[in-house]
Amino acid sequence: MKQSSGEGMISFAGGMPNNDLFPVKEIDEIYNNLSDDLKKLCFQYGPTTGYPPLVNSLQKIMLRKGLPVKTDKILITTGSLQAISIITQEFVNEGDIILTENPCFVGAISVFETYGAKIIGIPIDEDGIDVEALKNTIDSLEKNPKFLYLTPNFHNPAGIVYSEKRRRALLSVLSGTDIILIEDDAYGDLYFDPKDQPLTRPLKSYKGYDVDIIYTGSFSKILGPGFRLGYMLSSPEIFEKAESIKQALDACTSNFMQILANEFLTGGYLEPYLNFLRKEYKERKNMLQESLKRHMPKGIQWVEPKGGFYMWLSLPDQVKATTVFSDCLKIGVVFVTGRTFDPDNVKDDHLRLSFSNMPKDSIEKGVTLLSQVIKKYMQEAETRVFSRQIR
Amino acid sequence: MKQSSGEGMISFAGGMPNNDLFPVKEIDEIYNNLSDDLKKLCFQYGPTTGYPPLVNSLQKIMLRKGLPVKTDKILITTGSLQAISIITQEFVNEGDIILTENPCFVGAISVFETYGAKIIGIPIDEDGIDVEALKNTIDSLEKNPKFLYLTPNFHNPAGIVYSEKRRRALLSVLSGTDIILIEDDAYGDLYFDPKDQPLTRPLKSYKGYDVDIIYTGSFSKILGPGFRLGYMLSSPEIFEKAESIKQALDACTSNFMQILANEFLTGGYLEPYLNFLRKEYKERKNMLQESLKRHMPKGIQWVEPKGGFYMWLSLPDQVKATTVFSDCLKIGVVFVTGRTFDPDNVKDDHLRLSFSNMPKDSIEKGVTLLSQVIKKYMQEAETRVFSRQIR
Repeated sequence: MKQSSGEGMISFAGGMPNNDLFPVKEIDEIYNNLSDDLKKLCFQYGPTTGYPPLVNSLQKIMLRKGLPVKTDKILITTGSLQAISIITQEFVNEGDIILTENPCFVGAISVFETYGAKIIGIPIDEDGIDVEALKNTIDSLEKNPKFLYLTPNFHNPAGIVYSEKRRRALLSVLSGTDIILIEDDAYGDLYFDPKDQPLTRPLKSYKGYDVDIIYTGSFSKILGPGFRLGYMLSSPEIFEKAESIKQALDACTSNFMQILANEFLTGGYLEPYLNFLRKEYKERKNMLQESLKRHMPKGIQWVEPKGGFYMWLSLPDQVKATTVFSDCLKIGVVFVTGRTFDPDNVKDDHLRLSFSNMPKDSIEKGVTLLSQVIKKYMQEAETRVFSRQIR
Repeated sequence: MKQSSGEGMISFAGGMPNNDLFPVKEIDEIYNNLSDDLKKLCFQYGPTTGYPPLVNSLQKIMLRKGLPVKTDKILITTGSLQAISIITQEFVNEGDIILTENPCFVGAISVFETYGAKIIGIPIDEDGIDVEALKNTIDSLEKNPKFLYLTPNFHNPAGIVYSEKRRRALLSVLSGTDIILIEDDAYGDLYFDPKDQPLTRPLKSYKGYDVDIIYTGSFSKILGPGFRLGYMLSSPEIFEKAESIKQALDACTSNFMQILANEFLTGGYLEPYLNFLRKEYKERKNMLQESLKRHMPKGIQWVEPKGGFYMWLSLPDQVKATTVFSDCLKIGVVFVTGRTFDPDNVKDDHLRLSFSNMPKDSIEKGVTLLSQVIKKYMQEAETRVFSRQIR
């Protein structure tokens, strides 16, 4: 994963947690309290499907989220990107169609492209995917898409969470179509307010719809990306083939990382750490929100996120995100342009600001500089319009 | 990776290090001496190609082995099986031909099969691959094989090391054919005697041959499989495409594991630990060798290994390894039958005894039981021959 920012830059670019927020002390404590036998086991091969006690701990967590852990099976993966990669290898042949949101997590786009899929992006709004557009797309296609890939909770890059109504509408559209739904829940635990937790209810927990859902999750946002730990929950049939693909990819995921992660879950570290993260990210989000409200000109729009890492700014016509980016780079501010998250790599009217990896005291300055550049291009655009009118 | 033995079994099956041999104390020391910044970095994403200081440390080690680190590039992988998987995805389409040794490391066979390759196994003897058979196979094929996969040092399962003469003969045969050579050196550091080190000189270090070689290595045997750390050294062109495949597989390998491994290399831990392992494995090999000499009947053949984990026993005609296995299982002894390592899954005349994961005090008993079963079947075979003669 490439880092997007250089030294001395004010970076809204990186979609990773800040180094200062990792649970270093907790893992120190866990590591130094491991029994000798468990430490030795850290060094050894584990089963391809995952370290059994970790699978067990995840089952308990998933059960609390209403996920069908009695009928479906968990596969531990080397990061949740590996889960997406496995699913793609399991279902997709060159030229097959995959539906995604537009915008969509760029890591997933990159996997789908690597395996030769044709990606069709469906627009989203602040409540989730546009189900009418989804239905029309499905109806218009000559062959069924292999799957639909979604991030319903605290979307990367759009920052939104799907509404309850939209979740049900989506499931209704997919019901009976044989299109598998991949539900990427990397950010679901990172709501800012406990009252918003019900918003994050996994699609896979809904009953009464005929949709085959593969649910993926990650430790990257709730422990650290350096652990390379993720998981997927799927039907036994999908699980079985996924296991044999996993076997051919890296044999098994690191026992060392799985054992530490399991102790983190079973030792009561997760909830206090999540509460700490929620508070931290909420504070950063609030600072960014206030700063944007103070500095951004009218015409710049965004949805205030209820969780996750991202703000997704929509620019007015005639102001291109890539142009804003070039100017910002020169004055030491970076972000990711919207085009990155467009499967067609075209749409140039958004920019993603990440507040997860941002020193708090840089937010105000970064937004000030960014807003100056945006204002400049908005004024230029107005001047162009005006001069056309008077000519 | 499935464990092959149950509780209470005497197992010659597992191709993994013994839990009691891992450098637990060394890693304790390393972990607890990491700086705060380095510890934080353990939790973070790293570059797709690998943690730069680890790449740097590996370059130094490879340089000492005569490998072309100035012109070629290192990619860190999540275990060396991932390197094999990446190379296969890079070069192999459904129906393409891959040449391997016969017998061959089963993990590689499984990867090649997963990606739809047609595998052709070439016999080996105690000096390495049969170059005449290799040449004839290449000449007889209508399309060029995509690559030849080899384990020249302390072969799994055959335990052999390629002779200098055979290495050169092999390179001569491949020279100019455009067949890529994958040199898997997972065991090269595990020679039993320092005087045998020159035997392990990598094929990739030989000059004057026109062969494109991808060299793969692993930390699984010199630190622990639980780290899931491997690497490949290839031309910049192969490296570049491999990087983008790696990106789509798991984004990057665990920084946590890479940082610990790098401290292990730079902190002077590697050589003392290797010396300890060499001594340990040599002792186990000697015990197994003596025990086999004491108990095995005439007609059972094997090459005494100079390194690695394995003894490869050849059975006389009419005694099938799978039959021996079934009987041994009932009396509490397990190993891996030769068929597992035959790309065609047919040849039933060998068995692999691993001494790496064996409690030393079980060796004698295990061999005694195994030899009794083998003797029984040899006698039965003789009786059958005899009764046919007198009928």
